[in-house]
Amino acid sequence: MTWEVLSMIGTVAFAISGAFIAMEEEYDIFGVYILGIVTAFGGGAIRNLLIGVPVSALWEQGIFFNLALLSITIVFLFPSNLLKHWQRWGNFFDAIGLAAFAIQGAIYASNMGHPLSAVIVAAVLTGSGGGIIRDLLAGRKPLVLKAEIYAVWAVLAGLVIGLGMANKAVELYGLFAVITA
Amino acid sequence: MTWEVLSMIGTVAFAISGAFIAMEEEYDIFGVYILGIVTAFGGGAIRNLLIGVPVSALWEQGIFFNLALLSITIVFLFPSNLLKHWQRWGNFFDAIGLAAFAIQGAIYASNMGHPLSAVIVAAVLTGSGGGIIRDLLAGRKPLVLKAEIYAVWAVLAGLVIGLGMANKAVELYGLFAVITA
Amino acid sequence: MTWEVLSMIGTVAFAISGAFIAMEEEYDIFGVYILGIVTAFGGGAIRNLLIGVPVSALWEQGIFFNLALLSITIVFLFPSNLLKHWQRWGNFFDAIGLAAFAIQGAIYASNMGHPLSAVIVAAVLTGSGGGIIRDLLAGRKPLVLKAEIYAVWAVLAGLVIGLGMANKAVELYGLFAVITA
Repeated sequence: MTWEVLSMIGTVAFAISGAFIAMEEEYDIFGVYILGIVTAFGGGAIRNLLIGVPVSALWEQGIFFNLALLSITIVFLFPSNLLKHWQRWGNFFDAIGLAAFAIQGAIYASNMGHPLSAVIVAAVLTGSGGGIIRDLLAGRKPLVLKAEIYAVWAVLAGLVIGLGMANKAVELYGLFAVITA
Repeated sequence: MTWEVLSMIGTVAFAISGAFIAMEEEYDIFGVYILGIVTAFGGGAIRNLLIGVPVSALWEQGIFFNLALLSITIVFLFPSNLLKHWQRWGNFFDAIGLAAFAIQGAIYASNMGHPLSAVIVAAVLTGSGGGIIRDLLAGRKPLVLKAEIYAVWAVLAGLVIGLGMANKAVELYGLFAVITA
Repeated sequence: MTWEVLSMIGTVAFAISGAFIAMEEEYDIFGVYILGIVTAFGGGAIRNLLIGVPVSALWEQGIFFNLALLSITIVFLFPSNLLKHWQRWGNFFDAIGLAAFAIQGAIYASNMGHPLSAVIVAAVLTGSGGGIIRDLLAGRKPLVLKAEIYAVWAVLAGLVIGLGMANKAVELYGLFAVITA
């Protein structure tokens, strides 16, 4: 359940973030949808690849898929002058997505009995994978590699979960809130 | 059979397209071959990843592989002043490759019983995947994300096949001709 | 055993190379670690994908992982003025990594009974994959596509191994020394 909620939050946040950046780059409507979807599912695809789950499992997530499409559509329908006022929201959604996916990736790797170092790397790559692909597709240098502040939280998530300090749902939501804030 | 013919057309068209762009970027002979091969097989690799077929299945396509190598060699041996006259052919081969792979991806996803939205996304990503990787490796922003006109056709292919409107070979070739034209 | 030694050399060389370039781009500490790890394991991940071995097998390589982390840490702790003197070392480590991974990729593909053309492509992509991902993440055009000299050696490795000219450990080390030099 916690897993699904975190996936949902991360998917929506990254879909919005990808769509925002595609609009900043003046990509057309398909660029906006592709960047939104790739950002939302790129992190999960990389995580699945890295931990040995078939990437095609993503196709079974019908709800997440429709959620992402809905989020992107809402961003796309936003009047563009409003968008400029809210540009900073891009970073906010980025932070939410990173936190949700970093925790999710750490849980996955941890459940599979990987050592602490692998759990941390899983958290970092899962949390930042979608954003890195998004930045590459937008012709930008990946933000997460330059802006220290993001990755710290992903490492923290990996550390906390890898050490078995947070296993229950309540604790995980708390961790999520702390990282996002 | 239809599948093989579409694969063959897409492979040749994308191999030529990748080699063209590598030469425009003044990459060396290996850059030209790598970009040609990655463009030709990148879309298929992404499709295989997304639908759960092992990517290594690509290695069994000996004919396609040799076809791609042959196409790239022909492009490479072209006199470079002739190449400049034919620069627009790059876009033409891009369109052919996109149409062939979009239909192919849609057929695959459709055969596996995925819902309509997934079939459309499969068509878009399969058709545009090779070109996106090619543009990234050439240090360019992906053309397909900026130039609306391409992706429209891929969506159309997904829609037509997803709705079960084109199942027979004749219909598929007609769809391919319409998209390319 | 030869396999492990080549993996070890390639991992350390690419981890250092990735960390160097991240520092040249003034990425933060996490950018340095991510670029180092992605460069070290990106080639192997692409190889595993292409030859049908689960990418998650990378997680079992605990020693390589710690080796990479150690190498990156050493680079990171280097005083930056010393680094500028040694900038040319980046290319040296790149060449070592490419040679080690190209041979490794060729052995793998050869052992699986692939034809000569596939063995050559496996050598090229395995040897250059990590460096290409690294350059993309650093916002650069992939060096290996522009600088002929690198890929020649990877092709050579594929050719020699694909033709069954080097099967014993001594011969493989000799090939490695020749390619690096």
